[in-house]
Amino acid sequence: MRKVAIIGIGMNKWGELWDTSLRELYTEAALAAMDDAGVARVDSMYIGCMSSGLFTGQEHLSSLMADYTGMAGTPATRVESACNSGGVALRQGFIEVASGMSDLVLVGGVEKMTDVDGGMATYALATAADQDYESFHGVTFPGLYAMIANAHMARYGTTREQLAMVAVKNHHNGSMNARAQYPFEITVEGVLDSVRVADPLRILDCSPITDGAAAVILCPLEKAKEYSDKAVVEIVGSGHATDTIALHSRKDLSWLGATYTAAQRAYAMAGCKPEDIDLAEVHDCFTIAEICVTEALGFFDKGDGGPAVERGDTAITGKIPVNSSGGLKSKGHPVGATGVAQIVELTEQLRGESGKRQVKNARRGLAQNMGGSGGSTTVHILEVK
Amino acid sequence: MRKVAIIGIGMNKWGELWDTSLRELYTEAALAAMDDAGVARVDSMYIGCMSSGLFTGQEHLSSLMADYTGMAGTPATRVESACNSGGVALRQGFIEVASGMSDLVLVGGVEKMTDVDGGMATYALATAADQDYESFHGVTFPGLYAMIANAHMARYGTTREQLAMVAVKNHHNGSMNARAQYPFEITVEGVLDSVRVADPLRILDCSPITDGAAAVILCPLEKAKEYSDKAVVEIVGSGHATDTIALHSRKDLSWLGATYTAAQRAYAMAGCKPEDIDLAEVHDCFTIAEICVTEALGFFDKGDGGPAVERGDTAITGKIPVNSSGGLKSKGHPVGATGVAQIVELTEQLRGESGKRQVKNARRGLAQNMGGSGGSTTVHILEVK
Repeated sequence: MRKVAIIGIGMNKWGELWDTSLRELYTEAALAAMDDAGVARVDSMYIGCMSSGLFTGQEHLSSLMADYTGMAGTPATRVESACNSGGVALRQGFIEVASGMSDLVLVGGVEKMTDVDGGMATYALATAADQDYESFHGVTFPGLYAMIANAHMARYGTTREQLAMVAVKNHHNGSMNARAQYPFEITVEGVLDSVRVADPLRILDCSPITDGAAAVILCPLEKAKEYSDKAVVEIVGSGHATDTIALHSRKDLSWLGATYTAAQRAYAMAGCKPEDIDLAEVHDCFTIAEICVTEALGFFDKGDGGPAVERGDTAITGKIPVNSSGGLKSKGHPVGATGVAQIVELTEQLRGESGKRQVKNARRGLAQNMGGSGGSTTVHILEVK
Repeated sequence: MRKVAIIGIGMNKWGELWDTSLRELYTEAALAAMDDAGVARVDSMYIGCMSSGLFTGQEHLSSLMADYTGMAGTPATRVESACNSGGVALRQGFIEVASGMSDLVLVGGVEKMTDVDGGMATYALATAADQDYESFHGVTFPGLYAMIANAHMARYGTTREQLAMVAVKNHHNGSMNARAQYPFEITVEGVLDSVRVADPLRILDCSPITDGAAAVILCPLEKAKEYSDKAVVEIVGSGHATDTIALHSRKDLSWLGATYTAAQRAYAMAGCKPEDIDLAEVHDCFTIAEICVTEALGFFDKGDGGPAVERGDTAITGKIPVNSSGGLKSKGHPVGATGVAQIVELTEQLRGESGKRQVKNARRGLAQNMGGSGGSTTVHILEVK
């Protein structure tokens, strides 16, 4: 397998983008990434998107996005793995370049979520759970993650305040990110006083509904310098795993098995350990998710994810900065785009281009993206050369 | 890149399967393919599916299908390219094995289409067209292919009877296929007298709404004999291309550009020409499609696709047998499964296991699968070793 580099990144300012359509969102990010890489065409394209069918009545994004980026003819493939669609798109692009099939591959993620009302958005998102045994009976994602939170609090003594501190930290980071949907600070008191969604989760524990896209350009590592004179970032590890789709099938509700397995696979490929990671972007769809993820990635012991946030270990100036971008909570969560946007953030950080939120001495970053209540996960490890 | 073999195939009897759910359809075909290959697990899994969100309210098939095949943990990826989803799934599996990332890869396709009424099915299928500029204004796929048919008839003199002969041939072939949804003969008069859908297309020019799944197992060619003592079938060529998503953007409505390009890429990889192909499975979603496809694949000159059917060139005993399985018309068209079922048919034919519909001296087969009105296409070429 060939080594693979990231030579271009692109992303919109995320938010409720009433004037921008699905195809425009993707095209904007894709062309920005191509511009950043200095390439005028690609050999192949991946589009991560969860549910353009339910959100906009449009499937067949392969043809649509090749067409609207001006590259009709080019092989294009849409992949879906719920909120992990972007991470899976990156992995497919990685495999294609590694295989030798293609040199220049565009990996984009997109979701246009605000063309439907809130009830339909909640329905569309719930299609990531088990339709027959979960969604049909009325549970939605805040409810599923509330069960995870209750299990974690009961088993480990994780506090309601520690959950809030995840949101506060991520909003602090997001306040320094011009592309974030909600680039402002919040407080622990503000989170605790916000509307209850599914006990113990409040509205400020939840990532928002967002329109947005992100894209990166991949090429063989050995050819990276032919295209770009920016710092070269290599994908040194890629791990992918699944778990049961239904939460009730798991032995321990507070443990994300697919994240653990995907991380182990990525660490093995990269030849490194959790303590070798300088910063991470992880899937904080709800505040409890970030706590569980940082444990499953091996950054902290089981049950220590909550105290770690309280100690400041995951702050930009901490031991292992998590979600310097603002995370899903502040930056926004257009579900198919999230996994690719994590790679955009890490690449900027590793290039040293992150301005006020720059992590010092960032040489190796990890991205963790997951679908549903953790039923699928990808983990990627990037290194600046 | 490593060479890639097909060592297992599986498929259900297709039809209106009221008692079988989406997950059961996929699992049945997947386990049959694993049984055929003699393997108890795989390293990775692809699921081709067009719109399980709109048809069944279930996305996140990666997690669901890994879970329900008893392999939660295994990397799994759902791909979508409208009715070309199965072909794209095969290509992704091919790339993954070729890359060295995985040895044993399960590629399945599935669609459960009869859980919604006909109007919703037509809406779901129309999401493969351009939502903003085609579907929103009321055109559906029979209308789009009727425009293609009218263009082909006007330009080349293709006759209404020649369109009917495609359906008659495919039903004849399907009458010998126990897994076909409609395994019976029809007549030219019967097609011409059937209900008009979109002039000149009649209901018997159209492929049906179907529930079904199909699956194949891939491994490195050099390891094929470790798993199976059946004849080894190699994927010697894989081509993928896109075209404009909207029909009105094309210079010539009667020409399938993505099929031509994907075929040229597959022929180049395989080192062969159209005249070296012994049989083909092609995407006859409407009778006119088969005629256009056989021209774009280079089996016949432009405009000669209609006369070729009339001459019997595409019959099982003809110069280049097309759709020995019965095609989409008689076998059925569960849209995400179709591309994989084509590979099941070719593999059986190349192994010499096709019984009454066996093509004599079948050594090299071609599968062409496409999405929308031809906006995306994959072409694969298989050879028995």
